[in-house]
Amino acid sequence: MRWQKIEVASSKSYPICLGASLEELGQYLEQRVETNAHIIVISNPVVSEYYAEKVMSGLTNFQADQIIVPAGEEEKSLQRLEWITGEALKLGADRKTLVLALGGGVIGDLAGFFASIFMRGIRLIQIPTTLLAQVDSSIGGKVAVNHPGGKNLIGAFYPPLAVWTDFSTLQTLPWKEVLDGLAETIKHALIADRELFEFIQSHQKQIIERDTATFKEMTSRSLMVKVRIVSEDEKEEGKRMLLNFGHSFGHALETELAYRGITHGQGVSIGMVAAANLAKARGIISSAEVDKLINLLESFGLPTSIDKDKDHQKLVTNMQADKKNRGGQKILILPKGLGQAVICKDCSDEEIVEAWMAITK
Amino acid sequence: MRWQKIEVASSKSYPICLGASLEELGQYLEQRVETNAHIIVISNPVVSEYYAEKVMSGLTNFQADQIIVPAGEEEKSLQRLEWITGEALKLGADRKTLVLALGGGVIGDLAGFFASIFMRGIRLIQIPTTLLAQVDSSIGGKVAVNHPGGKNLIGAFYPPLAVWTDFSTLQTLPWKEVLDGLAETIKHALIADRELFEFIQSHQKQIIERDTATFKEMTSRSLMVKVRIVSEDEKEEGKRMLLNFGHSFGHALETELAYRGITHGQGVSIGMVAAANLAKARGIISSAEVDKLINLLESFGLPTSIDKDKDHQKLVTNMQADKKNRGGQKILILPKGLGQAVICKDCSDEEIVEAWMAITK
Repeated sequence: MRWQKIEVASSKSYPICLGASLEELGQYLEQRVETNAHIIVISNPVVSEYYAEKVMSGLTNFQADQIIVPAGEEEKSLQRLEWITGEALKLGADRKTLVLALGGGVIGDLAGFFASIFMRGIRLIQIPTTLLAQVDSSIGGKVAVNHPGGKNLIGAFYPPLAVWTDFSTLQTLPWKEVLDGLAETIKHALIADRELFEFIQSHQKQIIERDTATFKEMTSRSLMVKVRIVSEDEKEEGKRMLLNFGHSFGHALETELAYRGITHGQGVSIGMVAAANLAKARGIISSAEVDKLINLLESFGLPTSIDKDKDHQKLVTNMQADKKNRGGQKILILPKGLGQAVICKDCSDEEIVEAWMAITK
Repeated sequence: MRWQKIEVASSKSYPICLGASLEELGQYLEQRVETNAHIIVISNPVVSEYYAEKVMSGLTNFQADQIIVPAGEEEKSLQRLEWITGEALKLGADRKTLVLALGGGVIGDLAGFFASIFMRGIRLIQIPTTLLAQVDSSIGGKVAVNHPGGKNLIGAFYPPLAVWTDFSTLQTLPWKEVLDGLAETIKHALIADRELFEFIQSHQKQIIERDTATFKEMTSRSLMVKVRIVSEDEKEEGKRMLLNFGHSFGHALETELAYRGITHGQGVSIGMVAAANLAKARGIISSAEVDKLINLLESFGLPTSIDKDKDHQKLVTNMQADKKNRGGQKILILPKGLGQAVICKDCSDEEIVEAWMAITK
């Protein structure tokens, strides 16, 4: 096996195994998990059709079962969790069962949260198959389901045994989903890795063509930003908040649209530009740098503005409900040039409205 | 404030504060929690009527709200958890909200599990008001809800900030519930504290009359057994399994009766006698000692035998489903005389059937 191993420091540290194939996971497990262990692969119908067989083919020395969950964000619910628990029990799951979460962010969150609370916690390996999951959601141990009152309101910090990342899964990903991951990748570049920003700028064509080597380089660098940040701040008490760049504005817009007609990547893209405009008004990023960000996002087809019909005051109110705010206080992340960011706790509602206005077309 | 503080060692250690009043909790919090913090007291209608006002009267320097959940084991469900989440959001709960779980084992489990997963975990204080909760369920950080497939199948290890134990709440407790706690107290005595066993033997009259000093002494000693054991083994990987004494047999019986017509205390009482008979057959406890156990349980009105109509083989099958068994293996706790216990991993089904037969009347 030729693969790279990156250690994530946390309350329970774990490796991210990069660049090996899905088929090779079984070999990795044979050295770490007891023979004949019970394994449950959890995925959705699409991912299962593409990849479950590849994973299962490596698990011949284990008792491997599958649970297939319908696709979609709405499956991240307590109802679906109760159903998965029932299915797992039918398959004879006990405290020694190992869960493999095979899929994108939804599966990672749902199967990960299931593993965290089934019999008070069983073993988990994340196998992210989307760009978004590989660079972002599979790293850092956050798992959750949604509540009618908001997204990811019910969850846990649950570090997996390992994250198993096979870049080849990105080749089958719909472009819309590539964009979701690309928005987070550009976010990582902007808050912590200027060189990555420049790499993406100079490889636009290769990215659009999904050149394997370019994807591998970009994905590895991007996930390293997240690894560095969560290793320093597992429980989101300080530096980890930087990862929220673009998300306070983005979530407000997604909430406004009730998550319809806007992807997460689109929300983050617009949110980053809004936050960058606030930073520009404060003089910590130049006009030219904001333009570079806008140009880069637009070159991939990511949106950077909102329609005139949006109620700016309502968007500000939506930002109030963000669970990252503490004791009513609004916390925003602002870019400081390209490649750095700061936590801002004193942004006024007026500044925020101005930022929304600056991106209204 | 005159109270005793016992430190529980765990991944996050916390104190058990013994012997102070419910009204004094506010004073304790004022030194540890930010002024004006948002607090939600979660209890059921009965406990709330007796005690919520006492707790609330001490919380005048905080924003204190209440959520009242219907009483009963069936409320330990994911549906009720979703409802509590919605109520908490309506009350403006955020990541800095503090949950006070005021009640017995059901409230401790339900409100505790809610605190563990709301926004990936908020602060929690356990305020146990029943004997069972004071000596057992409030200590050790285990929280959970039930699933149609079994009890406590969905949960977490979530150490609270503190456990606040006011012995005066035991005075209003129905005798049936005193018995639930008494069964666990006798269990604690049997597995780890011979002196406590003798104390209970010599204070039967005072216990039945609920003499305050006797209750205080007995409860403190009993909970100390649990504190010592969970401090050594938070995640139930070794010594903590001793606390399961009487429970494998007891749960099998409770399952058989579908949890109707049998209290948990009754199940544990019968289960301890069954396990003691298996231990007697193995020669690690004397016949005279088993008789002492039976006499003590019966003096309080706890049952020690089962009816002829029970199918012993079915009871053995029920024991198979216990989540404490690893990889199909049956693990039993056997008393070694009075005041010690051992973990037994090689008890045969024949021995178990014999133990059931020995207590069939």
